Amino acid sequence: MRIGVIHGPNLHLLGSREPEVYGHDTLEDVDLALARRAGELGVELETIQSNHEGEIIDFISDAAPRVAGFVINPGGLTHTSVVLRDALVGVERPFVEVHLSNTQARERFRRHSYLTPVASGMVLGFGLRSYLLGLEGLVRHLAGT
Amino acid sequence: MRIGVIHGPNLHLLGSREPEVYGHDTLEDVDLALARRAGELGVELETIQSNHEGEIIDFISDAAPRVAGFVINPGGLTHTSVVLRDALVGVERPFVEVHLSNTQARERFRRHSYLTPVASGMVLGFGLRSYLLGLEGLVRHLAGT
Amino acid sequence: MRIGVIHGPNLHLLGSREPEVYGHDTLEDVDLALARRAGELGVELETIQSNHEGEIIDFISDAAPRVAGFVINPGGLTHTSVVLRDALVGVERPFVEVHLSNTQARERFRRHSYLTPVASGMVLGFGLRSYLLGLEGLVRHLAGT
Amino acid sequence: MRIGVIHGPNLHLLGSREPEVYGHDTLEDVDLALARRAGELGVELETIQSNHEGEIIDFISDAAPRVAGFVINPGGLTHTSVVLRDALVGVERPFVEVHLSNTQARERFRRHSYLTPVASGMVLGFGLRSYLLGLEGLVRHLAGT
Amino acid sequence: MRIGVIHGPNLHLLGSREPEVYGHDTLEDVDLALARRAGELGVELETIQSNHEGEIIDFISDAAPRVAGFVINPGGLTHTSVVLRDALVGVERPFVEVHLSNTQARERFRRHSYLTPVASGMVLGFGLRSYLLGLEGLVRHLAGT
Amino acid sequence: MRIGVIHGPNLHLLGSREPEVYGHDTLEDVDLALARRAGELGVELETIQSNHEGEIIDFISDAAPRVAGFVINPGGLTHTSVVLRDALVGVERPFVEVHLSNTQARERFRRHSYLTPVASGMVLGFGLRSYLLGLEGLVRHLAGT
Amino acid sequence: MRIGVIHGPNLHLLGSREPEVYGHDTLEDVDLALARRAGELGVELETIQSNHEGEIIDFISDAAPRVAGFVINPGGLTHTSVVLRDALVGVERPFVEVHLSNTQARERFRRHSYLTPVASGMVLGFGLRSYLLGLEGLVRHLAGT
Amino acid sequence: MRIGVIHGPNLHLLGSREPEVYGHDTLEDVDLALARRAGELGVELETIQSNHEGEIIDFISDAAPRVAGFVINPGGLTHTSVVLRDALVGVERPFVEVHLSNTQARERFRRHSYLTPVASGMVLGFGLRSYLLGLEGLVRHLAGT
Amino acid sequence: MRIGVIHGPNLHLLGSREPEVYGHDTLEDVDLALARRAGELGVELETIQSNHEGEIIDFISDAAPRVAGFVINPGGLTHTSVVLRDALVGVERPFVEVHLSNTQARERFRRHSYLTPVASGMVLGFGLRSYLLGLEGLVRHLAGT
Amino acid sequence: MRIGVIHGPNLHLLGSREPEVYGHDTLEDVDLALARRAGELGVELETIQSNHEGEIIDFISDAAPRVAGFVINPGGLTHTSVVLRDALVGVERPFVEVHLSNTQARERFRRHSYLTPVASGMVLGFGLRSYLLGLEGLVRHLAGT
Amino acid sequence: MRIGVIHGPNLHLLGSREPEVYGHDTLEDVDLALARRAGELGVELETIQSNHEGEIIDFISDAAPRVAGFVINPGGLTHTSVVLRDALVGVERPFVEVHLSNTQARERFRRHSYLTPVASGMVLGFGLRSYLLGLEGLVRHLAGT
Amino acid sequence: MRIGVIHGPNLHLLGSREPEVYGHDTLEDVDLALARRAGELGVELETIQSNHEGEIIDFISDAAPRVAGFVINPGGLTHTSVVLRDALVGVERPFVEVHLSNTQARERFRRHSYLTPVASGMVLGFGLRSYLLGLEGLVRHLAGT
Repeated sequence: MRIGVIHGPNLHLLGSREPEVYGHDTLEDVDLALARRAGELGVELETIQSNHEGEIIDFISDAAPRVAGFVINPGGLTHTSVVLRDALVGVERPFVEVHLSNTQARERFRRHSYLTPVASGMVLGFGLRSYLLGLEGLVRHLAGT
Repeated sequence: MRIGVIHGPNLHLLGSREPEVYGHDTLEDVDLALARRAGELGVELETIQSNHEGEIIDFISDAAPRVAGFVINPGGLTHTSVVLRDALVGVERPFVEVHLSNTQARERFRRHSYLTPVASGMVLGFGLRSYLLGLEGLVRHLAGT
Repeated sequence: MRIGVIHGPNLHLLGSREPEVYGHDTLEDVDLALARRAGELGVELETIQSNHEGEIIDFISDAAPRVAGFVINPGGLTHTSVVLRDALVGVERPFVEVHLSNTQARERFRRHSYLTPVASGMVLGFGLRSYLLGLEGLVRHLAGT
Repeated sequence: MRIGVIHGPNLHLLGSREPEVYGHDTLEDVDLALARRAGELGVELETIQSNHEGEIIDFISDAAPRVAGFVINPGGLTHTSVVLRDALVGVERPFVEVHLSNTQARERFRRHSYLTPVASGMVLGFGLRSYLLGLEGLVRHLAGT
Repeated sequence: MRIGVIHGPNLHLLGSREPEVYGHDTLEDVDLALARRAGELGVELETIQSNHEGEIIDFISDAAPRVAGFVINPGGLTHTSVVLRDALVGVERPFVEVHLSNTQARERFRRHSYLTPVASGMVLGFGLRSYLLGLEGLVRHLAGT
Repeated sequence: MRIGVIHGPNLHLLGSREPEVYGHDTLEDVDLALARRAGELGVELETIQSNHEGEIIDFISDAAPRVAGFVINPGGLTHTSVVLRDALVGVERPFVEVHLSNTQARERFRRHSYLTPVASGMVLGFGLRSYLLGLEGLVRHLAGT
Repeated sequence: MRIGVIHGPNLHLLGSREPEVYGHDTLEDVDLALARRAGELGVELETIQSNHEGEIIDFISDAAPRVAGFVINPGGLTHTSVVLRDALVGVERPFVEVHLSNTQARERFRRHSYLTPVASGMVLGFGLRSYLLGLEGLVRHLAGT
Repeated sequence: MRIGVIHGPNLHLLGSREPEVYGHDTLEDVDLALARRAGELGVELETIQSNHEGEIIDFISDAAPRVAGFVINPGGLTHTSVVLRDALVGVERPFVEVHLSNTQARERFRRHSYLTPVASGMVLGFGLRSYLLGLEGLVRHLAGT
Repeated sequence: MRIGVIHGPNLHLLGSREPEVYGHDTLEDVDLALARRAGELGVELETIQSNHEGEIIDFISDAAPRVAGFVINPGGLTHTSVVLRDALVGVERPFVEVHLSNTQARERFRRHSYLTPVASGMVLGFGLRSYLLGLEGLVRHLAGT
Repeated sequence: MRIGVIHGPNLHLLGSREPEVYGHDTLEDVDLALARRAGELGVELETIQSNHEGEIIDFISDAAPRVAGFVINPGGLTHTSVVLRDALVGVERPFVEVHLSNTQARERFRRHSYLTPVASGMVLGFGLRSYLLGLEGLVRHLAGT
Repeated sequence: MRIGVIHGPNLHLLGSREPEVYGHDTLEDVDLALARRAGELGVELETIQSNHEGEIIDFISDAAPRVAGFVINPGGLTHTSVVLRDALVGVERPFVEVHLSNTQARERFRRHSYLTPVASGMVLGFGLRSYLLGLEGLVRHLAGT
Repeated sequence: MRIGVIHGPNLHLLGSREPEVYGHDTLEDVDLALARRAGELGVELETIQSNHEGEIIDFISDAAPRVAGFVINPGGLTHTSVVLRDALVGVERPFVEVHLSNTQARERFRRHSYLTPVASGMVLGFGLRSYLLGLEGLVRHLAGT
């Protein structure tokens, strides 16, 4: 089984970006931890980071035939992108939304996510570990276990 | 007379994407039907599909000198893109907004369009035929007939 | 096939009423153009104009057994009449909503329509031609073409 | 004692209109059941159905001198008619508002009633029986029992 | 000069209807006082009272060619009728809106009027005298004095 | 057939509590009247009054296997308790919501009920008699008569 | 009988201030016209114009023992001053609110007046004549004629 | 390390309650799975289920000295209980909020949680597994791994 | 004279709970200070602390016959409990609402109190002293001094 | 220690102004009672009453170097004056806000205070005594007792 | 060319007032810097600071004949004064609004300015330098350079 | 010192795009004027114009190590892009937001900016000169002069 992993805009800045909010782990650290957990769960990953909404949409439809589902940290697109929601619904693959920080404890405009209502699950607030819990949750969901 | 036709994000998925909402016609079907109707109306078409807002903005300003107006299905950008509205207003070409589905019968966030208030006309709910009616409406509008 | 055509309140004033908004065509012009297009499409029309919501409701239930669907320009009732919505849903005939002007570019209270969410399609902003496009859209919809 | 019974717009469609919402009883069934219950309660009924708000207002002021109160199913006017509220308050007769369906479980715009705050009582959701319970409630209220 | 006078729904109840809100004058009293003041001002009146929105709309377009303007007490339609606003704007005659009671001191839904923004003037709270002041204001406005 | 009757918080105060709102009947009066009407309808009642939301939730799941449905006057919980709504939906028994007073004619926060959208029916404003009408409505509903 | 007349902030600019909104009459013209009408009505006037809310409040309590009521054009304080409302209510004198322009046809923040709900009457949109109608209305109101 | 586990109101109904929303696992299944996962993680659990907000508050302050943190599924209290939020903040123990269903895909009033902004993390939508992921996330968070 | 004192949910945590918000005084300190002040004022106190809304409601109706009024710090129930408001109004005893912290300077949901509009007085922000001032205010109010 | 006492606009009317809301005490009564309580508390007072926001702002900055804090009844400025808030925050002196009436039980626009979120404490509803309690609270706060 | 400079309420406190928000420059520093920049730009300044809205309004109409435009820091009046807006529009002189702090990063009520929509330009967040940039911008605007 | 200059979507159209809103200067004119002013201020510029949000985000993180701050005219992204805000905050460089037009005087959706609350300063309404003032403000801010 193959899982698509999507890091949204500005996640390439992880580690240096507002560490009091996002912690000191870099995106490389996240990807390493994800790879290790994927190995334990027996799945392969296909990963993208992009600051371009359009590239992420292209990735979703390109990767969809190859993957069983997606783990996505949509970054700032969470709160503004109907296009991203439509893409994820359009390819008919389950996905899990993850956030490093507790988006509900920050600015008011971060309270609403266009994705959560159509997600299989959502995990927030655990830092890097949000990704790992989200991946595990998705894989178990797909395996029906 | 030449008309620009713009298919917004995720419209490349037509046919397989939520067919209970968008129907079974593919984007190719739409383009064929548009070409046929354009022939009947005596106009040429110049068409783009893109998942990148930026590419659509570039297309609008590039194509503007060549076209008399636009037919646009803005997809999810309908509800979120001030940039798209600004581009269409900025090039001073009339445009018609079309939607395959009845956006007013779906999620609440689909009720509002940034484009309609500055459009020459709007057509929604007729599936593939929304494009054909929109094209005809635009051409008649431009011809003043 | 027979189609009911409904002109709502104040549409008898067409031609003299706010021509900068509604144009110079009279209701007679609209009906003539509709008759011609109906001829081309091979359908018959049954038409009413009334300033009385109640007469329109009566017409809808009276005509329903004779017609395959309705084209309706609800005028000011668009924004205020639950009764009209209930009547159109109650007789179980598809209908298309049309507007001469771009209602989304006018006062804020014109943004909302009680009818659109239960319509088969909607056309706005093309002046007299909104009716013709709406009629064509409805007939094709009924014919499944 | 005489009671006015008012069936608002579209209630003549009962039985065929959205039976999954309103049930299969026709307006005739409702009137028969009301007549039977009125007999049991020892009251006379004076009944109107109209799709015209104006006719209902006329009826309210015409009938007021002859009746002790009203049972009214205002249909779609529930949510939109200040005029109806003013008429019922104006004639100074107690009235009971009844609804066949559970209006609170439907579209958002059905949540608000202009009539309930000035009604003696309200009954909703029991189908045809809403009328019977409402009539009984009104008669007991008038009788002070 | 001729002025149309419109008494909206429920105003036939004046005198008996909620006298603590509307006072003890009957509609006949209002019409007598208006006739006297019209005589002083040198204008003729053409008056209607109706509980039917449609009849009022018909009256507005029928009377428009004969009158220089309208004095209207729209009753409960004040707060709900886009159709009435459209009719008054559509015939291009100045009009003055009058209210017997202080609508701003009553229920919240009476705060908004669809008519005031397109009226030449508005008078409220003076009881029967609101009509007289409104008539005088309109006549002076038309006379440019 | 057995029906659960639930009197929510503060209903033990009936008779002395704000009699201008709730009337002079005591809870004992209500229960006696309910017992009499239950006898006429051929059903048994199982009744609770509690000021503790938790006790009411416990009662609903305890009684559910024994009863065919519930009549509930939720008192102040009407406007605030998602937990109560979840309990009633969770045990899959139809229920009828009753209110002694006209909650829509009181403070603004009493306009919304978490229960009504999931109730089989609702009765308000008839004082003690709201219970009797609600019980009758529920029993007829369950009997399908 | 003596009437207090209050011209709020910026009314000293009348004549030169936005004449397309407020007309070409100066404050002197208004005062002359008021004096003439006061003479006809047999009342004396005591007038103030101030740009200082505090001076207006002082005037209201100083003048109250000498006047039977007030005519006030509150200018921009209409929409923002609770203090002004409290002063007018506090001295227990009836007052009439007047506006030269149609405040309901302008910016959204001009829709709400803190004064109208506690005024005896309100007149708007008649230019200078709003004052005259307001004065007449107040005097008649005080005279009970 | 010891973790408090809190099952809020109505969770004792799991398995039979709306299985299309909450699945077929019973609360016993949840507790067994939690016990197994706790064993793997090397932590002890102390568990409560209550339909009484007050009992849950008591439990939180009683257990606080014994536990390092809480996993809580607050059920319907999520959306309504400031008291629960205050208790969790008051004892100064980190907690994780879990939901079986995707609360963001249900009724509008379920969108807001009083707890999330003060939680260490939140997991929703994975059914029984939400608990396991939440427990793991909390334990890792406490262990700083 | 006897006064009921009610400490709402979580107030047993005082002293250790968020001392930067609530200060370092314990509930025992509060009760001692209240007892001393009661002695000075010549009144007796009857005190409860409970985390259970239901127990507080029970206390209010049990104690009402014995007490002249209540001092209540409702804790988190302030913002959510209609039931508590109904109980206090239902027993017809004046009460004073007190808060240790400045609730208006904290989260947005703490701005609204269901109790204040029906309280005799309210004191906030003085820490432990809020209780003493509230008690004094209530006693003077009851004594009419 | 010296305390500034500020009586806002319209408080000079006390005693005659709406006595059913504000009671029969005059401002002189308030000042006498304050002087007596100040004597007991061992503090001096410096008092102003003004109907001019600007004078109050001037007083606050003039008096600030001489006083340890302020007791302020801001009258109608409570709900509208950002300037007053800025002045009180700007001079960095603690202040207590007091209201004679229960502002939360009156018009909706009185619910919000610009001052409370930056006040040391607030007292409302105790009539003249609100001032005394507020003064005592402020003095104890400043004395740290 | 002469420019009016207006320092609104509380700006006389600059330097000592919340220096973490407004910085350490005093109003004297601001005026010196403005004088120097005015010299460079070849314009004269006429300056006022007042805590009285009325004085500022008086100044605007007094100075208008002498000045080409205004630079205004309205302080707290920014968010509340329609009167100030009306004065600036009424004298038909362009003006620039300046703020020392970033008003958009502070309390929610500071987000809205009554002045910005009618200003020629606005500058915020640069401390003392906001004035200098605003002055330069205004002078260039007036000079058309 | 080096400053990044960002021209957002549609700014390449300057000069031809809605000149009544944006003026007749082209983007080239803006860049020339900026270069001249940069020379005077002794700073270097690095400039981008893009219609692609993603390219702008890439530019921000690429340029951040080389620049001391940014001047940005975000165009339509101002009102919709959380991603842009996150990028600017993420690279920890001060930035100034500039707008050619007075965005507060246009459509309602242009009132809100996601950027201003995290900007060092903002300038709007001065046309091309907004850029120059913004650049000067930023450079002085960075230089601490």
